[in-house]
Amino acid sequence: MTTALEELAVRLREFAAARDWEQFHTPKNLAMALAGETGELLAELQWLTPEESARVMRDPEAARRVRSELADIATYLVRLADVLGVDLLDAAHAKLDESEQRYDADTYRGSARKAPPLS
Amino acid sequence: MTTALEELAVRLREFAAARDWEQFHTPKNLAMALAGETGELLAELQWLTPEESARVMRDPEAARRVRSELADIATYLVRLADVLGVDLLDAAHAKLDESEQRYDADTYRGSARKAPPLS
Amino acid sequence: MTTALEELAVRLREFAAARDWEQFHTPKNLAMALAGETGELLAELQWLTPEESARVMRDPEAARRVRSELADIATYLVRLADVLGVDLLDAAHAKLDESEQRYDADTYRGSARKAPPLS
Amino acid sequence: MTTALEELAVRLREFAAARDWEQFHTPKNLAMALAGETGELLAELQWLTPEESARVMRDPEAARRVRSELADIATYLVRLADVLGVDLLDAAHAKLDESEQRYDADTYRGSARKAPPLS
Repeated sequence: MTTALEELAVRLREFAAARDWEQFHTPKNLAMALAGETGELLAELQWLTPEESARVMRDPEAARRVRSELADIATYLVRLADVLGVDLLDAAHAKLDESEQRYDADTYRGSARKAPPLS
Repeated sequence: MTTALEELAVRLREFAAARDWEQFHTPKNLAMALAGETGELLAELQWLTPEESARVMRDPEAARRVRSELADIATYLVRLADVLGVDLLDAAHAKLDESEQRYDADTYRGSARKAPPLS
Repeated sequence: MTTALEELAVRLREFAAARDWEQFHTPKNLAMALAGETGELLAELQWLTPEESARVMRDPEAARRVRSELADIATYLVRLADVLGVDLLDAAHAKLDESEQRYDADTYRGSARKAPPLS
Repeated sequence: MTTALEELAVRLREFAAARDWEQFHTPKNLAMALAGETGELLAELQWLTPEESARVMRDPEAARRVRSELADIATYLVRLADVLGVDLLDAAHAKLDESEQRYDADTYRGSARKAPPLS
């Protein structure tokens, strides 16, 4: 975990400890909270066309809400990873190493059907 | 965004560009992918008790799967934030500033009903 | 609950009882399972354009998967409602009564911004 | 689809048509809305223990919110199935036929690890 991500994790740890909320921060509960916040993000984008979604940050009010949802998701993800002892960046790079092998750039170029994922 | 998070964002940007997949990486699509991966994380934890979920990393096979799901979630979250131009750490700290105001430590101590969230 | 929905609920109740799985079917666990299945549905549609998603059932293999995800979602939703003692159809009609009041047809016609939801 | 489920589907069809909202009701958008509502249900249950979740309907205010979320989920699920031409009950029973084969009652009795799913 990077220093900056670690800093956020430590701040969240202290925030929970000061309120005696560690008891609620089981992986099960935090995963539900993460999914709940992800649902709120979906709600911001659900009726937009893909093209409209690409312009969503031009509307200051929508931009504020989207930024807030991303913050909530990042917060619960960092807290959950901290509770589980997972280094998010290490884990992400390891998956990306695999994806670079699996999705050869020449074979999969421009193909949604064959290979849309990042992971 | 920290250097390390930014590094991951840049790597994802290049991964997408090399495959001509930017066309699929609209905010709408990436939010769906993020939610899909979050659903896979839930599936890992859904039948566990909260106590079992707190011990999930002791089982090497379950630990590998949970780490992999967290990696996928982090990957799509970082890619989505990059596409939207949102600095995840800035946004998370700003929300946490608000939460520290709203959830006074003395008032909310140990109370799930009054104040369980981080955000 | 209609006779046919009730029939499904009863079949699920017996399925769980025969395996002594009622212990796992808490509302919390079932809601996670429901969300996990919904995530799988999102994964089927995430890289499709809205137009492609409207034609998804023309591809027999994709149609089979989408149908299977919808079945899983319906299954957990009916089981969860049964465990909670909620009549899904009554509840849905009650919400729709409200929506018909709130979203006056003349005012909201054709407007995604003003009123896209069903509920 | 049963008569009562079909009735709800027809009511939703007319609700959408009267507002010219069919244009927003692509499978992709409806799946996002379904997932968004499922996220709201998770938020109701995320900090409860499994035991507390089993008693959630005893609190009239929580019961009202849970019932409302289940209504929203049912609504989008029925609308989505209608748009896709899927008979939810047929599909659910077909999956349950498979599950009854796969999860033999004697083998899987009481085992969360071996066989917790309904589907």
